[in-house]
Amino acid sequence: MQIRRAVESDFAAMWPIFQAVVADGRTWVFTVETSHADAFALWFGPGVSSYVAEDDGRVVGMYKFAANQPGRGSHVANAGFMVDPQCAGKGIGRAMGEHCLREARRAGFLAMQFNIVVSTNEAALALWTKLGFSVAGTLPEVFLDEELGYVDAFVMHRFLDDVEG
Amino acid sequence: MQIRRAVESDFAAMWPIFQAVVADGRTWVFTVETSHADAFALWFGPGVSSYVAEDDGRVVGMYKFAANQPGRGSHVANAGFMVDPQCAGKGIGRAMGEHCLREARRAGFLAMQFNIVVSTNEAALALWTKLGFSVAGTLPEVFLDEELGYVDAFVMHRFLDDVEG
Repeated sequence: MQIRRAVESDFAAMWPIFQAVVADGRTWVFTVETSHADAFALWFGPGVSSYVAEDDGRVVGMYKFAANQPGRGSHVANAGFMVDPQCAGKGIGRAMGEHCLREARRAGFLAMQFNIVVSTNEAALALWTKLGFSVAGTLPEVFLDEELGYVDAFVMHRFLDDVEG
Repeated sequence: MQIRRAVESDFAAMWPIFQAVVADGRTWVFTVETSHADAFALWFGPGVSSYVAEDDGRVVGMYKFAANQPGRGSHVANAGFMVDPQCAGKGIGRAMGEHCLREARRAGFLAMQFNIVVSTNEAALALWTKLGFSVAGTLPEVFLDEELGYVDAFVMHRFLDDVEG
């Protein structure tokens, strides 16, 4: 597997993964109604750095990071990750997570923050904990889960000073 | 004092307040370098509801709210408040805060969340606590304070079910 910077022409392969990931309505705030244009802007908008993971030349996952806030909060990155559901359990998320920490550090960010990690998303919680993130807060009922209704989500945070850029 | 929906022509009076509020670099992430266009978009962009507080026909403060997240997080509002520093201590922030809770509830939001309340901003912390918000989490060193360097900030949250719309 290879992880490289995404280019706009990759979106043809990224869009079906986006749609497959949001389809169950259990991990991302974006719904299946999200337009192609809105999804594109999410990955290639101003200030966004996007990467794809390729296996045998096929895109199997993607991630992005950007400043979580402008100006006086712009030293903290926010990031998002999507793995093709058909390729789950192969360590793609973990490889992208580690790659992302290095790239964000290299880009000069001092920390990384996830704003809404759904409390029922055990795979994500386990992965981010393993990669050094801590829960900075619990947001009550901020996520409308497709199966359970309103559920809590976590803000997770990690400094990047121990990451080799 | 009267609080009413802001219209685009109000921005002529809102822009100097924006500039005065961000000037000390101690409460908002936006810096003094923020462009007129970026500030305008902040108050009149898509999905944003903006209001001004007027005293004797003069704008003395403004606030705005919008969904804090799209889709499955869109039932939670985010809000921002600015009071003309020359009119501080007159209860304008509190009046706008109460007004904002009612308007957000009326607009159908179920909760309100502030993403980055600077830990040194005692006036804001006291006001939001008084208006029913709780600290949902502490974000370490996420705000670059002009005087103190990197300082913590709080995520604050409040359900709106007890607010009369």
